[in-house]
Amino acid sequence: MKAVLIIADGLGGRPTDLAGKTCLEAASTPHLDALASRGALGLVDPIGPGVRPGSDTAHLSLLGYDPRRVYTGRGVFECFGIGMDVCQGDICFRANLATAEETPDGLKITDRRAGRIDRGQDQLAAVLNDVKLTVSPKISFEFQPSTQHRGALLLRGHSIRLSSQITENDPHAVGAVAPDSKPNPDVIEDAAARVTAAAVNEITKRSFELWKDHPVNRARMESGKPSANVVLLRGASDAPHLQSLESTYRVKGAVIAGGALYRGVSLACGMCQLDVDGATGGLDTNLGAKAEAACKALETYDYVFIHVKGTDNAGHDQDAEAKRDFIERIDRELIGPLAQQLDWSKTHIAFTGDHTTPIDFGDHTTEPVPVLFAGPNVMPDGTQEFHEREAARGGLCRFSGQVLPILFGYCNWSPKFGA
Amino acid sequence: MKAVLIIADGLGGRPTDLAGKTCLEAASTPHLDALASRGALGLVDPIGPGVRPGSDTAHLSLLGYDPRRVYTGRGVFECFGIGMDVCQGDICFRANLATAEETPDGLKITDRRAGRIDRGQDQLAAVLNDVKLTVSPKISFEFQPSTQHRGALLLRGHSIRLSSQITENDPHAVGAVAPDSKPNPDVIEDAAARVTAAAVNEITKRSFELWKDHPVNRARMESGKPSANVVLLRGASDAPHLQSLESTYRVKGAVIAGGALYRGVSLACGMCQLDVDGATGGLDTNLGAKAEAACKALETYDYVFIHVKGTDNAGHDQDAEAKRDFIERIDRELIGPLAQQLDWSKTHIAFTGDHTTPIDFGDHTTEPVPVLFAGPNVMPDGTQEFHEREAARGGLCRFSGQVLPILFGYCNWSPKFGA
Repeated sequence: MKAVLIIADGLGGRPTDLAGKTCLEAASTPHLDALASRGALGLVDPIGPGVRPGSDTAHLSLLGYDPRRVYTGRGVFECFGIGMDVCQGDICFRANLATAEETPDGLKITDRRAGRIDRGQDQLAAVLNDVKLTVSPKISFEFQPSTQHRGALLLRGHSIRLSSQITENDPHAVGAVAPDSKPNPDVIEDAAARVTAAAVNEITKRSFELWKDHPVNRARMESGKPSANVVLLRGASDAPHLQSLESTYRVKGAVIAGGALYRGVSLACGMCQLDVDGATGGLDTNLGAKAEAACKALETYDYVFIHVKGTDNAGHDQDAEAKRDFIERIDRELIGPLAQQLDWSKTHIAFTGDHTTPIDFGDHTTEPVPVLFAGPNVMPDGTQEFHEREAARGGLCRFSGQVLPILFGYCNWSPKFGA
Repeated sequence: MKAVLIIADGLGGRPTDLAGKTCLEAASTPHLDALASRGALGLVDPIGPGVRPGSDTAHLSLLGYDPRRVYTGRGVFECFGIGMDVCQGDICFRANLATAEETPDGLKITDRRAGRIDRGQDQLAAVLNDVKLTVSPKISFEFQPSTQHRGALLLRGHSIRLSSQITENDPHAVGAVAPDSKPNPDVIEDAAARVTAAAVNEITKRSFELWKDHPVNRARMESGKPSANVVLLRGASDAPHLQSLESTYRVKGAVIAGGALYRGVSLACGMCQLDVDGATGGLDTNLGAKAEAACKALETYDYVFIHVKGTDNAGHDQDAEAKRDFIERIDRELIGPLAQQLDWSKTHIAFTGDHTTPIDFGDHTTEPVPVLFAGPNVMPDGTQEFHEREAARGGLCRFSGQVLPILFGYCNWSPKFGA
């Protein structure tokens, strides 16, 4: 048996100006419809009914974990996603390169994304990573940039305990002063949180000292671009305790995802990472290359998880036509080739989204998402198309999370609970 | 956005003598049917499949709380519902005014409701509330009557810990002796439970001493009515830890409910109470006044919760025609005016019950209840009527509790879990 899980980020929708249809209803999706005819549909609440999912928590839940128990924050998945080596006890952060101005009140943030800087990030990282923290010689750190202004930072204590229970220093507003990190207000007096916050504050301060006149920024200023002169840190999180999918199911899997967060969640769950040229995590991603890489990976791996981000981007941009068109591209360039090339006598596929991102709202909402399963062990339920309203009539009814365990169940890979 | 939640208590049913239809099927409900045509239906298990709900636990679950975690007993909601000031550490009781006869074995209860006494309760309460407990000067209490024989009692320890882990003294049977309250048998030797039980026993004993010859009761005896000469206490509960709906969703809501228990649950969750003339919590309630109050409240509040009790009363009375007729009144006098007066371009509504109360059984059962959502962000599912069988075909399928979070999700009010 082989298995393919495809999550189109933010796939679900509400009726739009496209003749009152959702983007998925409005899209022409002959390949998905053919899979629906052979398979079965349902509605999945990514985390649970009435719960508005983040992308990280939703993915954990769809992969079979209970995010209420295991979720420790976003930072750790960013670190995993960039390929950083996370150990128990480390504190992980999502990091932004930003633009700051020195004021008597502190560092005023004038651009949270440093003009979406697209080169020189590694040189900035190199000088910052040479810093030895004075707050404690027992704390080391590593900052690693990913795409544009994005990156991750990992704090490690050596014979000293650190804590994720601290406030962030990203003010989330342009023109505001970056606040000092402090122990969370609801944390009882805790030396670990105090020293961790102090380390964050020292790193931020040192980044500004080292970067404000760095050659990368002098060049940016000369060409009229905002400096990338400070690092902002948020999403402080501990390494979560996640039993690996391989140890649970005894199968090996690989992830194909452009976005670091999705790679990070998958790696944290024990998948291997496949790098695909042109997998950008955007609307311009190379879907055909993902299909090809997936088919090739299935020669080696038992299952492949393909994450596609463009649907969510178009949803956040509130662009119904872009979302519809991207769904049509998924159908034509990803589902079509898979449908043609995979051996359907021994392959199961699941296709769904990690949440609803309606055009009218432009952000995640609580509504359930259509889900499709097909393959030799899936009992066809008589549905003929793949979209929200047809899925509501599907034979799989409505359930919460667990799409990967259900897919693996069809593959007869599930361990028995009990005797 | 605005939101309206309506819970018709005990709405769900089973087929009845009304041509084999449920009361909801037998009722003519043009306004609910119109909402169904514009919205979507499903089945909701108030707490979970196969769980037989109480009204308090069902309401907590429908409002988005997990009653398995937060429910501490009924008494606290009775206290909240009467407007008592509950603090952490207090022990709350549902109280009954009852009729007792002195016997060598103790107080024999001859009427658990003291002939549904309808005047003089405040005078009885006043003399009881003057008692200083000899069991400990550190324990104070307050008894407050509500309607007829009903009331609530609150015990408060001052620099002394009390415990809800005690047995009740209501024998739940006429002709039986009211048992002494004791620490629960499964409680390990606990001074707090011992002193709390002793306080309950002293209050009960003192109530009989003070009330047996009280002028209120002398007058009752002269006119042949049973004395209200003892207080029975049940449902001992601690103040629950409930995060307020306002702190979770950042919206303000109000409750319109005749019954103290429903007001109590709603107040404990952070809603404000609206008093509506003629909202009795019975079959004779003024539904039009509730509709009017709700429309007016929505000028100030983000959402309104309307509780209607009559459906459950008719179910407990095993009167199918009364239940059907009351459902028709709900449709005509409550739903009709709301449908006409609310601005449906920016209002979402949810209509459901808190459990099934079938005519043949006359008490709560485990079956799921039909639920309806309508409003601009609800995707119509093709259903045309509102009742159990149509709801089973609805596009929302079946889920557990969480009706308020789902309603708020349509309003785009939900906080994101994760990033």
